[in-house]
Amino acid sequence: MHIILLSGGSGKRLWPLSNDVRSKQFIKIFKKEDGTYESMVQRMYRQIRTVDPDATVTVATSKSQISALRNQIGEDVSISLEPCRRDTFPAIALATSYLHDVEKIGEDEAVVVCPVDPYVEKDYFVALRDLSDLADKGTANLCLMGMQPTYPSEKYGYIIPENRDPVSKVLEFREKPDAKTAADYIARGALWNGGIFAYRIGYVLNKAHELMDFEDYDDLFSKYESVQKISFDYAVAEKEPSIAVMRFSGSWKDMGTWNTLTEAMEEPVIGNGTLNETCENTNIINELDVPVLGMGLKNIVVAASPEGILVSDKEQSSYIKPYVDRMHQQVMFAEKSWGSYTVLDVESTSMTILVTLLPGHHMNYHSHERRDEIWNIISGTGRTIVDGMEQKACAGDVITMQAGCRHTIIADENSPIRLIEVQIGKDISVKDKTKYSLELS
Amino acid sequence: MHIILLSGGSGKRLWPLSNDVRSKQFIKIFKKEDGTYESMVQRMYRQIRTVDPDATVTVATSKSQISALRNQIGEDVSISLEPCRRDTFPAIALATSYLHDVEKIGEDEAVVVCPVDPYVEKDYFVALRDLSDLADKGTANLCLMGMQPTYPSEKYGYIIPENRDPVSKVLEFREKPDAKTAADYIARGALWNGGIFAYRIGYVLNKAHELMDFEDYDDLFSKYESVQKISFDYAVAEKEPSIAVMRFSGSWKDMGTWNTLTEAMEEPVIGNGTLNETCENTNIINELDVPVLGMGLKNIVVAASPEGILVSDKEQSSYIKPYVDRMHQQVMFAEKSWGSYTVLDVESTSMTILVTLLPGHHMNYHSHERRDEIWNIISGTGRTIVDGMEQKACAGDVITMQAGCRHTIIADENSPIRLIEVQIGKDISVKDKTKYSLELS
Repeated sequence: MHIILLSGGSGKRLWPLSNDVRSKQFIKIFKKEDGTYESMVQRMYRQIRTVDPDATVTVATSKSQISALRNQIGEDVSISLEPCRRDTFPAIALATSYLHDVEKIGEDEAVVVCPVDPYVEKDYFVALRDLSDLADKGTANLCLMGMQPTYPSEKYGYIIPENRDPVSKVLEFREKPDAKTAADYIARGALWNGGIFAYRIGYVLNKAHELMDFEDYDDLFSKYESVQKISFDYAVAEKEPSIAVMRFSGSWKDMGTWNTLTEAMEEPVIGNGTLNETCENTNIINELDVPVLGMGLKNIVVAASPEGILVSDKEQSSYIKPYVDRMHQQVMFAEKSWGSYTVLDVESTSMTILVTLLPGHHMNYHSHERRDEIWNIISGTGRTIVDGMEQKACAGDVITMQAGCRHTIIADENSPIRLIEVQIGKDISVKDKTKYSLELS
Repeated sequence: MHIILLSGGSGKRLWPLSNDVRSKQFIKIFKKEDGTYESMVQRMYRQIRTVDPDATVTVATSKSQISALRNQIGEDVSISLEPCRRDTFPAIALATSYLHDVEKIGEDEAVVVCPVDPYVEKDYFVALRDLSDLADKGTANLCLMGMQPTYPSEKYGYIIPENRDPVSKVLEFREKPDAKTAADYIARGALWNGGIFAYRIGYVLNKAHELMDFEDYDDLFSKYESVQKISFDYAVAEKEPSIAVMRFSGSWKDMGTWNTLTEAMEEPVIGNGTLNETCENTNIINELDVPVLGMGLKNIVVAASPEGILVSDKEQSSYIKPYVDRMHQQVMFAEKSWGSYTVLDVESTSMTILVTLLPGHHMNYHSHERRDEIWNIISGTGRTIVDGMEQKACAGDVITMQAGCRHTIIADENSPIRLIEVQIGKDISVKDKTKYSLELS
């Protein structure tokens, strides 16, 4: 099967574990059998591979997520890069033409589109494969997966089917209703619209050419900023007469808030944390090294990361966004394709960060205009290149780089490198960076 | 007036703001008129100076608190150092002989002893002066201050006076009672015993010589480890027939738990923190740079420091001690006589700290057996001495020191220095330190 995973959103609702550079799908919060933790995107990718080892997986996402994606699921997936945010129809059209023009997948083949962030089990992916088969057989131009509602929710759109068969024709779509209307819909057999659907590639390509003026993938990519913002539902689904919906009644949880996310946690505490025996329905998620102690807490979530600390009543946590919007905060932790960094100290004319390079990986060869940097290697082995000069590097080595000087560090194949980088300058900014190409021997 | 302030205790009940090296009296939590914050010890010292600018203040404390005391109240107080913990009678006897033998205060002069950690107002110090005057006049051998009870507390000892006069003879002492008995005591005019008393120096010196075999202050200091542990109440107060008690009904709050401490906070949030409008009776005390956000919290205290994060129901917070005892944690922040340090990163073979040197101050001249160190100066100016060689130091300078190498850094008179110290070695420990004398030019 061919899957397009839509990976979007800045995920402020899960602050402080998500932020402008780390979306919620990258938070490592789900316990694996081996006791380590994986993120939503890692979990979903692993599940897809379990059900269909040969699936082609394409992630449609923005530039800001590429480093984290590569860090977490490696080079094994294709990425359809959205040059900017243009709503779901252009994003799906771009990814579909990427599959056709770059991956050379035929127009008659089916593709499944689904968001990367629901919390699901294996049966979900079996259903996705069935959905792909439905589209493949030409059952309808568009084949949706409809979620069996568990309560009259006001936060989903509803799909009204012709009947209650496992697969039926769609009569109409309804926007998010109030609870009473939702109950009426459910009584009529309606399903939640989870944004999961399948189609033959040629179908969406034709729609795309009808609505946008472009030749092929490269052309659409280059014009992407000028295309109209429009949702897939509005541009395609709501106008299409030939739509089928397949019922899904397995487990499917939206992980949009701390309230729903903590429900999916297998244990109350992740990271260094303790809850005393008088706590009830309380979770700690602690990404810091220092301990968190909770005493006498009821229905509370405590989340701590290098970005900040949230202590919230679980119900209240869904109202977090405006508070986070007001913060305008320094990014304190980021996953990059080559590793990660954590900010340790910020002063008016200096910043100190801890850098971890994955084995065999290296930073871009780059320079800064307005700051000097000092690398204090604290563990691992590798080599540095500074203004073209290569040197071996190991724990205890100190490398000083004046502003303007080009530099990179390369970790040996079998050794991660950790270093303390001290930046000194009057105007320290992540934007102050010039990249250069480099031929590595 | 002569005052002995008893400054003791590791203060685990106020974790994570107090710890093994920082007792609760050093937490800067009380807002001053200029908007900055002061600690209990700074507040008390300032209040004493307001009421009696000529008071001689002697702090009886242990070695672990000297650095923080000097950092917070400077060189203006005397310190009577307790070589080890030997309960209150030896501590008071040692401080009293210090006043007599070192400070040369006469045997007929009165001295007031009080703990450093209650939260009080100016009237308390006016009362202390009255108490000192009572002892001075020879009203009784021992003059106590008794606190007018505000409820039948089970956590204080009670003083039973002869009558309800402002000053009266003490009939007897009673240990912490249950609430019903406490109510009976209060009905009889009893007072809380706050551990505040005055006496003539000669009185306690005589008692000390009766109970301990020593010549003078130096002799007692050198023998201190071998003297018996015994409380002042047991050794002196409970056996003394001539005791007067002076009633005090002004403000006097015990700051022993987060519950009582937060009551004394002028505003709900100290540091970088936000409470949404659905929070009630909730406090944030945040010593970290990153924001704390509280939502929908009732009767909660959130305290965050480099040592850890506490989130507790206020009532429950009094049960914190066993949880903190179990932590055995790395000290992450310490105030020293020359400045302070914060631990930024701890790895198996390295540790990174941020060091702040106060203007004109310097570290001990010292070396380490088992670790190399690198100083990255991030701001300020001064000079380093490394194996006897002196060099100027300013922002951007890097100084590398191999294990065994002697080193110090001296901040210029008008400039604090901040530096990132990277320690590298297999067995990093605060105990691995050899100090050397150094003549500074």
